Amino acid sequence: MKILNKEFEKTFVNDLEELFLWRRDVKSFSNTTIDQDTLERLMSFACKAPSVGNSQPWRFMLINTLETRQAIFEEFKRENKQAAERYKKETKQEYLKLKLEGLLEAPSHLAVYSETTPLRGKGLGRSTMPETVRYSTVLAIGQLWLHARALGLGLGWVSILNPKNINQILQAPKNWDLIAYLCLGYPKLNSQIPYLEEVNWQSRDGFKEFIIYR
Amino acid sequence: MKILNKEFEKTFVNDLEELFLWRRDVKSFSNTTIDQDTLERLMSFACKAPSVGNSQPWRFMLINTLETRQAIFEEFKRENKQAAERYKKETKQEYLKLKLEGLLEAPSHLAVYSETTPLRGKGLGRSTMPETVRYSTVLAIGQLWLHARALGLGLGWVSILNPKNINQILQAPKNWDLIAYLCLGYPKLNSQIPYLEEVNWQSRDGFKEFIIYR
Repeated sequence: MKILNKEFEKTFVNDLEELFLWRRDVKSFSNTTIDQDTLERLMSFACKAPSVGNSQPWRFMLINTLETRQAIFEEFKRENKQAAERYKKETKQEYLKLKLEGLLEAPSHLAVYSETTPLRGKGLGRSTMPETVRYSTVLAIGQLWLHARALGLGLGWVSILNPKNINQILQAPKNWDLIAYLCLGYPKLNSQIPYLEEVNWQSRDGFKEFIIYR
Repeated sequence: MKILNKEFEKTFVNDLEELFLWRRDVKSFSNTTIDQDTLERLMSFACKAPSVGNSQPWRFMLINTLETRQAIFEEFKRENKQAAERYKKETKQEYLKLKLEGLLEAPSHLAVYSETTPLRGKGLGRSTMPETVRYSTVLAIGQLWLHARALGLGLGWVSILNPKNINQILQAPKNWDLIAYLCLGYPKLNSQIPYLEEVNWQSRDGFKEFIIYR
């Protein structure tokens, strides 16, 4: 089916911009579970993300085993302790007070992988920038993140994990690269302000700071 | 300002899903220019994307000089010729017929960079997975892509370029990593079908192929 003039309404654009503002990295979840249909809906639309050469390198791993989740949490604690050691006294105290994940609360855990050298796409578009394969998977995650928020869900990206250890815990295929470990659930709180801004760790700058011309 | 119950309407969710389906990688642009306000609006909302440790590593470079654009196009032609050599006879012929960029038509060129080790965020969240800095910039690009489509614009990601050569042409700061070279403009055509699917290079698979459980 091809239609030549698909236009989006102004009210939709306004709501979309609201969505960009309201999307958050969520660390506190209620105990309401997410039904399988909703999870599949999210993943099916994530697969409509752009990918280099249409290579569709994204691979979704849903972690339902409690033991596995616990092992991930233990891995987080180990890595987080080491991460804290990188800071000096005061900042270290500040860092240790932060809530950086909701692994035990989140009703759904999703590890997102990227196939290293996908057959799909016949290598198109990635000979000089092979990293675009992984970037394609990141685009799928970004889409899922916005979609989740629109459905009233929250997503938290946990990056304080060593991919090697995660791959071992999850028995990931050898030709898969871990891109993100995600927590999903209904958020306890909605806010337009990022958590790290709220707790005075890092504020956001105006966009003009980030533009240059050539 | 903090509101505890921001909910999105069902009609909005439907339109958002439509947007996911209609977003395309655009290679053919009309000659209508994009006004500066629209470009700034896109970049300002892109800066609301999530970033590891709130590090905001994205850097936008707008390329307005005609000579520079021409140099980018020459670089594309060189790399694309080499990319074609990787295919055998028939596939090579097929490859050479593809339209993979709209560099000369697009009214706006945007190179998106990522600061290698941003000071913002104090390194939080990236000690074990430093690649999350670049992934943050990719998330900003994904947001900009959807936003552009909602506003009736199209975006094309050109990845058949050697970053080293691009950095030299653009005189990019040394501590910046090239993430994407983007073309922006009003598309000549709207479609729900990816170009590479339409020309039988690579079709899309159902999402269930991409899910496993642990």
